[in-house]
Amino acid sequence: MTDFILDWERLQRTGIAEAVLCDGKSAAQIEAILRHAGERPLLLTRLETALFHALPAESRAGLDHDPLSRTAFHGAVPPPALDGVCVVCAGTSDLPVAREAVRSLAFAGYRAPLVADVGVAGLWRLMQRIDEIRSHRVVIAVAGMEGALFSVLAGLVAAPLIATPTSVGYGVAAGGRAALSSALASCAAGLTCVNIDNGYGAACAALRILRSMEGRAA
Amino acid sequence: MTDFILDWERLQRTGIAEAVLCDGKSAAQIEAILRHAGERPLLLTRLETALFHALPAESRAGLDHDPLSRTAFHGAVPPPALDGVCVVCAGTSDLPVAREAVRSLAFAGYRAPLVADVGVAGLWRLMQRIDEIRSHRVVIAVAGMEGALFSVLAGLVAAPLIATPTSVGYGVAAGGRAALSSALASCAAGLTCVNIDNGYGAACAALRILRSMEGRAA
Amino acid sequence: MTDFILDWERLQRTGIAEAVLCDGKSAAQIEAILRHAGERPLLLTRLETALFHALPAESRAGLDHDPLSRTAFHGAVPPPALDGVCVVCAGTSDLPVAREAVRSLAFAGYRAPLVADVGVAGLWRLMQRIDEIRSHRVVIAVAGMEGALFSVLAGLVAAPLIATPTSVGYGVAAGGRAALSSALASCAAGLTCVNIDNGYGAACAALRILRSMEGRAA
Amino acid sequence: MTDFILDWERLQRTGIAEAVLCDGKSAAQIEAILRHAGERPLLLTRLETALFHALPAESRAGLDHDPLSRTAFHGAVPPPALDGVCVVCAGTSDLPVAREAVRSLAFAGYRAPLVADVGVAGLWRLMQRIDEIRSHRVVIAVAGMEGALFSVLAGLVAAPLIATPTSVGYGVAAGGRAALSSALASCAAGLTCVNIDNGYGAACAALRILRSMEGRAA
Amino acid sequence: MTDFILDWERLQRTGIAEAVLCDGKSAAQIEAILRHAGERPLLLTRLETALFHALPAESRAGLDHDPLSRTAFHGAVPPPALDGVCVVCAGTSDLPVAREAVRSLAFAGYRAPLVADVGVAGLWRLMQRIDEIRSHRVVIAVAGMEGALFSVLAGLVAAPLIATPTSVGYGVAAGGRAALSSALASCAAGLTCVNIDNGYGAACAALRILRSMEGRAA
Amino acid sequence: MTDFILDWERLQRTGIAEAVLCDGKSAAQIEAILRHAGERPLLLTRLETALFHALPAESRAGLDHDPLSRTAFHGAVPPPALDGVCVVCAGTSDLPVAREAVRSLAFAGYRAPLVADVGVAGLWRLMQRIDEIRSHRVVIAVAGMEGALFSVLAGLVAAPLIATPTSVGYGVAAGGRAALSSALASCAAGLTCVNIDNGYGAACAALRILRSMEGRAA
Amino acid sequence: MTDFILDWERLQRTGIAEAVLCDGKSAAQIEAILRHAGERPLLLTRLETALFHALPAESRAGLDHDPLSRTAFHGAVPPPALDGVCVVCAGTSDLPVAREAVRSLAFAGYRAPLVADVGVAGLWRLMQRIDEIRSHRVVIAVAGMEGALFSVLAGLVAAPLIATPTSVGYGVAAGGRAALSSALASCAAGLTCVNIDNGYGAACAALRILRSMEGRAA
Amino acid sequence: MTDFILDWERLQRTGIAEAVLCDGKSAAQIEAILRHAGERPLLLTRLETALFHALPAESRAGLDHDPLSRTAFHGAVPPPALDGVCVVCAGTSDLPVAREAVRSLAFAGYRAPLVADVGVAGLWRLMQRIDEIRSHRVVIAVAGMEGALFSVLAGLVAAPLIATPTSVGYGVAAGGRAALSSALASCAAGLTCVNIDNGYGAACAALRILRSMEGRAA
Repeated sequence: MTDFILDWERLQRTGIAEAVLCDGKSAAQIEAILRHAGERPLLLTRLETALFHALPAESRAGLDHDPLSRTAFHGAVPPPALDGVCVVCAGTSDLPVAREAVRSLAFAGYRAPLVADVGVAGLWRLMQRIDEIRSHRVVIAVAGMEGALFSVLAGLVAAPLIATPTSVGYGVAAGGRAALSSALASCAAGLTCVNIDNGYGAACAALRILRSMEGRAA
Repeated sequence: MTDFILDWERLQRTGIAEAVLCDGKSAAQIEAILRHAGERPLLLTRLETALFHALPAESRAGLDHDPLSRTAFHGAVPPPALDGVCVVCAGTSDLPVAREAVRSLAFAGYRAPLVADVGVAGLWRLMQRIDEIRSHRVVIAVAGMEGALFSVLAGLVAAPLIATPTSVGYGVAAGGRAALSSALASCAAGLTCVNIDNGYGAACAALRILRSMEGRAA
Repeated sequence: MTDFILDWERLQRTGIAEAVLCDGKSAAQIEAILRHAGERPLLLTRLETALFHALPAESRAGLDHDPLSRTAFHGAVPPPALDGVCVVCAGTSDLPVAREAVRSLAFAGYRAPLVADVGVAGLWRLMQRIDEIRSHRVVIAVAGMEGALFSVLAGLVAAPLIATPTSVGYGVAAGGRAALSSALASCAAGLTCVNIDNGYGAACAALRILRSMEGRAA
Repeated sequence: MTDFILDWERLQRTGIAEAVLCDGKSAAQIEAILRHAGERPLLLTRLETALFHALPAESRAGLDHDPLSRTAFHGAVPPPALDGVCVVCAGTSDLPVAREAVRSLAFAGYRAPLVADVGVAGLWRLMQRIDEIRSHRVVIAVAGMEGALFSVLAGLVAAPLIATPTSVGYGVAAGGRAALSSALASCAAGLTCVNIDNGYGAACAALRILRSMEGRAA
Repeated sequence: MTDFILDWERLQRTGIAEAVLCDGKSAAQIEAILRHAGERPLLLTRLETALFHALPAESRAGLDHDPLSRTAFHGAVPPPALDGVCVVCAGTSDLPVAREAVRSLAFAGYRAPLVADVGVAGLWRLMQRIDEIRSHRVVIAVAGMEGALFSVLAGLVAAPLIATPTSVGYGVAAGGRAALSSALASCAAGLTCVNIDNGYGAACAALRILRSMEGRAA
Repeated sequence: MTDFILDWERLQRTGIAEAVLCDGKSAAQIEAILRHAGERPLLLTRLETALFHALPAESRAGLDHDPLSRTAFHGAVPPPALDGVCVVCAGTSDLPVAREAVRSLAFAGYRAPLVADVGVAGLWRLMQRIDEIRSHRVVIAVAGMEGALFSVLAGLVAAPLIATPTSVGYGVAAGGRAALSSALASCAAGLTCVNIDNGYGAACAALRILRSMEGRAA
Repeated sequence: MTDFILDWERLQRTGIAEAVLCDGKSAAQIEAILRHAGERPLLLTRLETALFHALPAESRAGLDHDPLSRTAFHGAVPPPALDGVCVVCAGTSDLPVAREAVRSLAFAGYRAPLVADVGVAGLWRLMQRIDEIRSHRVVIAVAGMEGALFSVLAGLVAAPLIATPTSVGYGVAAGGRAALSSALASCAAGLTCVNIDNGYGAACAALRILRSMEGRAA
Repeated sequence: MTDFILDWERLQRTGIAEAVLCDGKSAAQIEAILRHAGERPLLLTRLETALFHALPAESRAGLDHDPLSRTAFHGAVPPPALDGVCVVCAGTSDLPVAREAVRSLAFAGYRAPLVADVGVAGLWRLMQRIDEIRSHRVVIAVAGMEGALFSVLAGLVAAPLIATPTSVGYGVAAGGRAALSSALASCAAGLTCVNIDNGYGAACAALRILRSMEGRAA
């Protein structure tokens, strides 16, 4: 008997496949989950490199692991082929979260370009790529520190904008609360946000929108 | 010369028309804005009844004011005719925020049904109306206190779900932080949220999605 | 002379036997306590595996240590034979705290079944087991992240319900404050709660109720 | 059509009758609820004197209103006849919350004595009445400021103890967080707690225990 | 004998003349201070209109009171004649704080233009006036809500930039903490900030810079 | 040249000798300070065992290091001979802070008995030793978790009482904020407190009182 | 029967006479307490002028009420005749709290001079009076805003120093947390502190010291 | 293709050269940045010794690394030759942040003397060096714990004063919030501040002032 229940019907019910948050789980628990999954594809998030290497070689062989984003694909995941969403990222330290979003979208079939290092301290970097960003139906913005990118982008883009604050920063920014508050208190209307460092959640929110657009939501 | 600049091009740029947050403004400032707007439609939010009555009779005559939601329409606003979004509300104390969302959507042309008093303490009330809720392309959920409605709904509905925490509650719930944390920390994936009591912002987020679906986003 | 005083009369006075919180104590201090206890049974909580292994082999031999819950029984503890309480757990990461409650109850003579992985994101998992949960006189609920399980369960169960928030989660959920607030601010009435990660305290609260029911309270 | 749904089956389902939290509701909304209830008994909480007087005379006539506790009984509520619980209160400023608990218990049929002004600054006052307190199957403790009463009482009493922190105090005690933390962090085991100022919730928790003892829980 | 000591030498010592914070003082206390000051000029801050009108007519006659900024000049204050600083303001609700800065500078002899309503939700409004802003030796930026203006401006302007967060906003922005955190955590380097709503302090900081530039600092 | 200045005249000026907080200093910095001190006695606080062992053997030889309290005496410190203060301690986990107070008093010439493990969960343990505690002119109380000891003791003892909250505890007690709030919000009058874990500061406060009593204060 | 118990033996037990905190009590409750006290002297704190005027004329006649400090003496209180303590106050807005301390000391027989308006922004004001301050056996320091006075004074004075933070200030100082943190985190050793705005508590702490010095403590 | 964009024009635009925050970056990322920079000088901040040693020997050879301040210069940086700013530091534990400011100024051409260990607990240490401090056009003050140095200095110096709170301290001072609040809530006017531990930001703020003075700002 197991202490976990994989929710294989979740995709039908909510448009989002079951994923496994590895943080706080032991290698043995993850191993049991993978064995239980068998051939069925599974997304693993927050799988730190050390934990990945603590898995048996056989399990590791079946995983497509990306150390930067700490994600892994189990099972046969076809290359992403759908368009519609892009991920915009303020600084290089925000890349792990931004790539967690990109990878989660890839697992669901969407290839999302990553527009990196466009923080507002150098506004021209953002303006150079604004048309590219505007060409997508959904935009995910990833920023830590003071999170000013969220408001600036919301004033420039008409698409749904999902702010993803990160825990990048120190002092009053430590832990991501400053960026989170910026997203929530934005003077620009129609911005929504997810939990700090939750690139996976931002991707799921984008998937809900994209699938609702495609008439695929239940 | 004025100290304010109405952003009439905002609708084109971001899909959201300019609105006036009346909280913190004097009757004289609001009067000046209305005169400046002339015939152009304008949405006013957080217009408390006392502040509304402090406006000159002439200005009040041109306003369609709703005391519960503290919103007013200035200018000719056609009745809403578009569908696609519904507003779900946990308790009667959350109604002012829920109706702010409904009215903001109406201003933009969308008629959004309000599914009220479906808090999770009586789960059967929510289950009775879940199919009705599922029939919309976007769902706005409004709840204060512990905000458990957000996670329960996110597990039942595949559409984009915009959580709107309210400041309803006392003790640890006072000010809305408990409900906000519940929305952000939800174990159900793909939920996004807006600032506490921000019914207008939730409506704007829904509009971004609906217009992106209709290919109307810039 | 010792710097600690074991309160062997506590069981008579409060219905709860003395327990030793090992967190913050050195192996030498724990060793001294065990020697002082002699044959008398003693419950040790928060005994991390590393600290357990720092004890002399002789002491370890006399301990029934459970690594997941970080509890140990010292002395002869008879197998639990009483019924009346069950422990309900939202996710696999909450298991250490849930098992701390189960083990503390076992030390006091109660065998408590553990209903695991019934978080509200998949409500059907909870509904499948709700009759089993309802068959107990006291229910302990263990959940981290947003803690929505507490309110949902309180609306479904008439028995005394002891919410035990855990520190599972990140961002606004880090440290367990979001789950704690959800328990305290619940829209469902009659729920009580204990400190974050305090599975032992939840068990003690259940014991107070069970013993008061049995007329065994002082 | 109404925006509220009274949950008349809640008593069967959870052992707790529906109550109406008046705080945040208008006189018109409360009036509508009373009319909807008709003859059926209803408990109203947080009904401030000013709001009570804003109700039509006819409605007021049908209410048994207690200004100190801000509670009112609607409909025919028989005098309480059951025993089993007492309410212990640290200072006179905590009386509104303590009496909210007493009145909520009375509405449910339990007469609960109130042991007042036994704060720990004068420990002899508490010790003089400790045997009286110990004679009950459930104890509700109400205290603001630093909430030391909770731990002292938990060390003296074996019965289930429900701590109810109040917002009484200033400086670091303002809002009740200090008393709440004391309840949760107590060094005495088996104490549980409810939200700040939630006398009604404490009563409901006691009712869950009493009814479970009587085998009346579902 | 008085309970206050006006520090007439402060100007020599720190370059900043003594000012009187009226908030928390009674009309009688302010009256005593004005009488004590005699002919010497004095700046009064946070003098709410109601408190102003509670002063004796004679005292009011000697005051140049500005209700929006809640400032008053006592004594003969020559019109400002010096240049070098401008005040930039995000929204109309931030005007009271922005004007407190402008008036405090005027009291010290500097005429500071006010660039209003240039929040980042409409970036083009800021860009239209950026050259005007860049023409000053010191820039004071005033913003509430998420305070994104601070970072955007710091990336566009080379002059010393003094961020002044305001308490404008609700939910997570209430009280000004979100804007304050944005100023402190800014990804743009070299920005400094003052306390929330402290327009007077921002002006004093600008004066320290301007006087140091002019070689007038001690 | 050095980056530190030892304040050898502090004893004359404030009644408290200079002490060195080792936390945050390197072994090299501490070594330089010891060399600079020469024969003069010096108290070192927060000298963790690892840092102590990182000092050169020669320096270690001149130190009387106590690992539990993380204090060390440098130079010739005569055995304490004065009476007047006792240290009362709630639990064994609070011993490091309690002993930091005892050792700091010893350095200043006072021998302070330590009354340990008298937390309020077992009130009889405290009552057994209350007369001993009452026999001192100053009492230092050390407690973590909910800190109820402070209020109980303040109601039982007439002497000056210095509350020293510790960071012992988890959940809402983590970091010591709950105990600190209890000390500050105490319903018992005349209690004062020092920073969390500041046993040295509590000793210094006691010394100020004892020396003022002896007419030795400046 | 009453809901309160006046603790007339407290003076013997703790050296501090019973006082009545009027904040949160009704005029009727205070009236009952005064009648119960009869001839016995009683100190009332936080008796706002409005509440004072709500008392019956007869009661008011027997009270020596000081509006600034919101204190009142009931019964025959002889003029203070003892020396040994002074109260130091940073700004005029801190006077209500400072005078609460002075009045509480007067009620207990001590005349305490008040050294006002010596905030650290003008250090010379403090230095001019430092010898006067040093001549007392106990010093109470009262300050709001950033509370720098506490550390500066602790470095200059050898006597016991009781810091009393006030809620004076705005922005990050609002509510007194900044001043409280400054007192607790002071780099100057041997400072203790009481709750925010607790002038009465500071006086009681001074009384404990003075009476312990006089050998009057139990 | 790279994920970062170095902003070589930033010096022209904002008076501040691009710097690289190494915290949160991998050795590989830093190596890539250095290679990209080539001969152009670059300032690296928060380069911990361990991370420095993880770089290839060749890269390390081109770096002038200062372990205490965790800064490094890449490329040919001429010795600083300009005057105008000094750095004042409260305690030895604040030195890493103070030196980060000194080094950042040196990179920009300014040699800034460091006035160390002048905390307010020994005011005479500060007074001995106050004339030296006053001789500079800009002053940076660095302090942790309670940060009283900021207010004292602001009352003594007329030059622009940039407060830099540090995370030095424990209990309520842990993380630097107490020192930050002291800077913001200062009773001394005209003080500004930067984020906790942001010595680099303080230097940049000083550079904005110095360059504006020299007419070099854009």
